[in-house]
Amino acid sequence: MAASRGVRHDSMRARNLAVVLGTIHRSGPHTRAALAELTGLTKTTVSSLVGDLLEAGVVTESDAVRAGERGRPGKAVRLSGQRVATLGLEVNIDYLAACVVDLTRTVRLRRTRPADNRNSDPAVTLGELRDLVKEMTAGAERAGLRITGAALAVPGTVEGDVLRSAPHLGWRDVRVGGLTDLPFAIDNEANLAALGELWFGSRAADFLYVSGEIGIGAGLVVGGTVFRGTLGLAGELGHVVVLPDGPACRCGGRGCLEVYAGQDALLGSLPTVASLVRLLESGDRRALETCERAGHALGVALTSAVHLLDPGRIVLGGIYATLYRWLEGPVAAGLADRLGLMRGTPPTLLVSGIGPDAAVLGAAGLVIQRLIADPAEVLDLQ
Amino acid sequence: MAASRGVRHDSMRARNLAVVLGTIHRSGPHTRAALAELTGLTKTTVSSLVGDLLEAGVVTESDAVRAGERGRPGKAVRLSGQRVATLGLEVNIDYLAACVVDLTRTVRLRRTRPADNRNSDPAVTLGELRDLVKEMTAGAERAGLRITGAALAVPGTVEGDVLRSAPHLGWRDVRVGGLTDLPFAIDNEANLAALGELWFGSRAADFLYVSGEIGIGAGLVVGGTVFRGTLGLAGELGHVVVLPDGPACRCGGRGCLEVYAGQDALLGSLPTVASLVRLLESGDRRALETCERAGHALGVALTSAVHLLDPGRIVLGGIYATLYRWLEGPVAAGLADRLGLMRGTPPTLLVSGIGPDAAVLGAAGLVIQRLIADPAEVLDLQ
Repeated sequence: MAASRGVRHDSMRARNLAVVLGTIHRSGPHTRAALAELTGLTKTTVSSLVGDLLEAGVVTESDAVRAGERGRPGKAVRLSGQRVATLGLEVNIDYLAACVVDLTRTVRLRRTRPADNRNSDPAVTLGELRDLVKEMTAGAERAGLRITGAALAVPGTVEGDVLRSAPHLGWRDVRVGGLTDLPFAIDNEANLAALGELWFGSRAADFLYVSGEIGIGAGLVVGGTVFRGTLGLAGELGHVVVLPDGPACRCGGRGCLEVYAGQDALLGSLPTVASLVRLLESGDRRALETCERAGHALGVALTSAVHLLDPGRIVLGGIYATLYRWLEGPVAAGLADRLGLMRGTPPTLLVSGIGPDAAVLGAAGLVIQRLIADPAEVLDLQ
Repeated sequence: MAASRGVRHDSMRARNLAVVLGTIHRSGPHTRAALAELTGLTKTTVSSLVGDLLEAGVVTESDAVRAGERGRPGKAVRLSGQRVATLGLEVNIDYLAACVVDLTRTVRLRRTRPADNRNSDPAVTLGELRDLVKEMTAGAERAGLRITGAALAVPGTVEGDVLRSAPHLGWRDVRVGGLTDLPFAIDNEANLAALGELWFGSRAADFLYVSGEIGIGAGLVVGGTVFRGTLGLAGELGHVVVLPDGPACRCGGRGCLEVYAGQDALLGSLPTVASLVRLLESGDRRALETCERAGHALGVALTSAVHLLDPGRIVLGGIYATLYRWLEGPVAAGLADRLGLMRGTPPTLLVSGIGPDAAVLGAAGLVIQRLIADPAEVLDLQ
């Protein structure tokens, strides 16, 4: 029964590797002695686990110890940015993007390729993405970085590794495979943008990230984790009903938020968000009314979202970050008016600081999150 | 450093006790050998942990082993209903309720006391509840049951142990203490009713439980856990916006679901739900139209809820269970019409089988859940 005993031993060791790495990730650099205190493991066990993590290149040990840390001074174990990294990818309506991020959350490589992916052939677009993956992998290798996995953000709904529906790409039921031999995940752009905001933006542990694009998505982060729902389809804020008998929406419903506050509704016949901003800055009455109407609808939909999801704060991202000056007033007023008696104060409204990079950064963050949750599995530590 | 070493040892042992008990809870009776296989712990460790759990009375060991289980036949370790139980409590608008449930989920004691708690004095109502607690505790003691904790369901929002707002009771910021010396928790009735449905009803792991009462709440269960939001205020389905400029709601908003589909809207001047059912059964046109309108509004609000929460199925409880025959049609049609293109099929619509007991049973279930998550802490196992 040696094999069976081996399995038992490994599963315990894998759990403990995750406990030690998770502690460093959550609460920063610590000495081995402090890690033993914090994890409830013996110093001998911690030293052996730290040895494995050092060898795998996910942590490094240095002399600096934070002031006030208990016990004798000693070397601090911290996450290492030297040898391990992850790959974030994004297919969006008008571009492809990729980034390589190391474990200290430093962006090491970054590419965006403009592209017209509206109603594109998935095979062609994914072929272009594959070229980008090769370029990034080669770049990472030159920098001495091992990439442990990749994740792809898409503007649509995802089940498992199948892109179920991305209406603005015109894609349905596309199985995304063969991009890379690395461990691979695919998720909705709003979920990953929320993770991007968590890992690279405000870093608050509880918020609703609202991704204003041609479609409107939302990603809810609770206690540092993205809430995904049963099938991973949660957060479709763009199809929350604002007016039951309103205009028809492409989803088959009527009066959805997207009809009033999606990019197409905001731009009308204008070519770009930049041109809308110029009109708003010049005080153009029609542009201001359009924004006011969108902000009002967003306030109604977010009221429903707050009642159902109870987010700690609301972060407006995507084009809503660009238009925040004009949206903030009507959205905040709508929330205050409708939520007043149910809650002391409505959730704080904020603007995202990381802009259009949120989703691709979040994709890289997802892979880091998985590595930290199970380093033994991801790094193949025996 | 013996004390410190003791702490480390205990924290590991506490974790392992939870792993073993959780395995029995999730996947049923197992031999000690099977438990070792399933948990990755050694047989010696499992035997020592099972010994502690036997002594605490949470498990029992018997000869019966399920067919097809691997390894030699042996005694199976299963949850015991003999010695440990939990106490569920409920304050609602027209009654107080209590139940004692053992670890096999058998209801051992059950009391409901009719009461008029609308705009009541919290001190008086909680005094009556304290008497009920004494009666139940004494009854449990006579049955040889040790109660490990209690939880209270209330028709309002809760933060920590404070009932923030229960508008139909007329209570605000009531700190609920002194009911019992037992470990104690308090939660919203819809959250606990969802837990009741999970533990005592359909036992599906993913669903949205809709509690139709004077207020309308919802509890979302994902992967067997109630989703609570940041402040525990999630699931306020009754205040999802159905029509932005609709009639004023007591929450300060306008056109909320409760205005169209709460018990007061459904009953109008009728005295009871039973009298509405009699009219519906006799084909009364006005009663049928009222139900149709409520079902339509419920379909709109549930569309928004499905887009945001992505529940696997929707369970209608409370008075919606009683009125299911008349609500099912308009609700299902609304979901199908609006969700059609976004999802293959809308979530299945079901009626709750456990009726008005859901919340008080769920309260007892919450305490069982906590015991299983950390038996060392709850049972004071050293």
